[in-house]
Amino acid sequence: MRRPTIADIARQAGVSKGAVSYALNGQPGVSEATRARILAIADEIGWQPNSAARALNGARAEAVGLALCRPARFLGMEPFFMELISGIESELANHSCALMLQVVRDHETEMAVYRRWWGEGRVDGAILIDLHVDDPRVPEMQALGMPVVVIGHPSSAGSLVPVWSDDGAAIRETVEYLAALGHRRVSRVAGLPRLVHTVIRDRAFEDVCAEIGITESVTVHTDYTGEEGARATRRLLSSSRRPTAIVYDNDIMAVAGLSVAQEMRLNVPSDLSIVAWDDSPLSQVVRPPLTALTRDIPAYGAHAAQRLLALIDGTETGPLEDQAARLTPRGSTAPPPES
Amino acid sequence: MRRPTIADIARQAGVSKGAVSYALNGQPGVSEATRARILAIADEIGWQPNSAARALNGARAEAVGLALCRPARFLGMEPFFMELISGIESELANHSCALMLQVVRDHETEMAVYRRWWGEGRVDGAILIDLHVDDPRVPEMQALGMPVVVIGHPSSAGSLVPVWSDDGAAIRETVEYLAALGHRRVSRVAGLPRLVHTVIRDRAFEDVCAEIGITESVTVHTDYTGEEGARATRRLLSSSRRPTAIVYDNDIMAVAGLSVAQEMRLNVPSDLSIVAWDDSPLSQVVRPPLTALTRDIPAYGAHAAQRLLALIDGTETGPLEDQAARLTPRGSTAPPPES
Repeated sequence: MRRPTIADIARQAGVSKGAVSYALNGQPGVSEATRARILAIADEIGWQPNSAARALNGARAEAVGLALCRPARFLGMEPFFMELISGIESELANHSCALMLQVVRDHETEMAVYRRWWGEGRVDGAILIDLHVDDPRVPEMQALGMPVVVIGHPSSAGSLVPVWSDDGAAIRETVEYLAALGHRRVSRVAGLPRLVHTVIRDRAFEDVCAEIGITESVTVHTDYTGEEGARATRRLLSSSRRPTAIVYDNDIMAVAGLSVAQEMRLNVPSDLSIVAWDDSPLSQVVRPPLTALTRDIPAYGAHAAQRLLALIDGTETGPLEDQAARLTPRGSTAPPPES
Repeated sequence: MRRPTIADIARQAGVSKGAVSYALNGQPGVSEATRARILAIADEIGWQPNSAARALNGARAEAVGLALCRPARFLGMEPFFMELISGIESELANHSCALMLQVVRDHETEMAVYRRWWGEGRVDGAILIDLHVDDPRVPEMQALGMPVVVIGHPSSAGSLVPVWSDDGAAIRETVEYLAALGHRRVSRVAGLPRLVHTVIRDRAFEDVCAEIGITESVTVHTDYTGEEGARATRRLLSSSRRPTAIVYDNDIMAVAGLSVAQEMRLNVPSDLSIVAWDDSPLSQVVRPPLTALTRDIPAYGAHAAQRLLALIDGTETGPLEDQAARLTPRGSTAPPPES
């Protein structure tokens, strides 16, 4: 099992490797008949110019990279990732472009992977996700000179092109809605505390609670798994002044939280209101269906891929603010119980 | 924005490109001091040998390919795909190997993509999924000589290495269980009729129904979407002799079927039993939770990746029969109503 080479073509055609090279590169030095025969043999045995030869001719890798610094099992569990990747793929497919996907252990490995992919001409650009506060990947990516789109807030993207949505506005809409229903004790079961979008949501939650007089607001950070979401919910609901509403940073944790409420004999929504972020089929099939922060995640992925392809083409592109998540009220939110 | 080249190193070091080449390749022709300086500059500006140079040295692409001939949105909708990909990634991550993922329109494009990836040294092997009856990709992949693992039944895999599970046995277990509960009118809402695993399930369903005297058995083929699953269910439940049990070929359709039953004021499970294949969080959070055919899909993907990596290493590997899906009874199955 090996790839066909110029030597294989030369052997079959009964000519020198030099002659094959002339024929394949359209240079003079072989007769038209020989050139035609060589091209036919190359085609027949499935010869392809290798990446370096293509790169010398300015050809593209026709692939973009995405290194993912999360456990591999998250891909199968988090609807957000699958929908984002499906959106990225839908746009790339229109351009016959592949996605190089690699799960990495840490940011150091992630950067080593990007440096290798870019240096070896295996990708034309990359998408950076899950930005951390003071993320060392941003200056390193800038220094690398590779076209990069960041899915994340412009304030942390340096000179890289950000595609983002306003998480602060979505939190504000949610808390204001809960306050209008009468809630005064609202908690958040949040994601990883080092991620930029968690910090933005944390701050917006704190600000809007202070503004509208929700004095009892607690945020608990988790790793986004159902297990930690359930544990955080159990702890919140066991406190003497338990919240009357909880906002979750993903749908997996919101569904787990609903189960915990039911296991603790609390009625959703009359004893406890639940809001899930993001929305997904999961949030809609549970009983009651969950009030959720809805956004078109595949479109978000597609927009990031569009921006990246434009950047690779050398088109001038700036930041893209995508639609903020919108509150979709369903059966899991109601006024709080009389206290 | 461009990749650093040998010329860049030569310019910064104030030496010829030839000298840089000697230094990088550990050949004589430059002093040790110059070699050290050149290597330091190469490192500093992030120079990497290109793919062709690496390939000449027998280096690997450190990537495997997966071209997916399904609409991109399926990736975000079908838990099966993302769980399979998460399992593949978990194994590849252990070997610092990437997955080249491309969504393609048809099998012709799929083969062109594989030929290019293999010919250009961008992948070391590939995983073939969704086998069709008399699939032209099998002989083409054999001719290409690329290491390939097929996720599918050995009878259709030619000389490629299959990783598979016994779908016939799982169908048999399900139908026998439904018959033991007393069901005599059992339907199947199946997937795409051209796929080998659909054909295997169709045949096993027909055989076991005939054996145990279930004379009223209907199979309806769909495209796996919730919409078609709902339509097929509505049609089945509108017939004068409606089934008392329906087995679905995926969880999305089973959940959609449950909604249709509820919309038609049928009680699940007392009027209608429902079985979902595969199992997923979705099947477990609906009310009633669905009886499902459960298998460890991430492990299935990981096994396929293991087999492929062994094949790339030149290890002799044969077919791998993975565990068949097992019936997990939950609240959606019960004896049929008295007729």
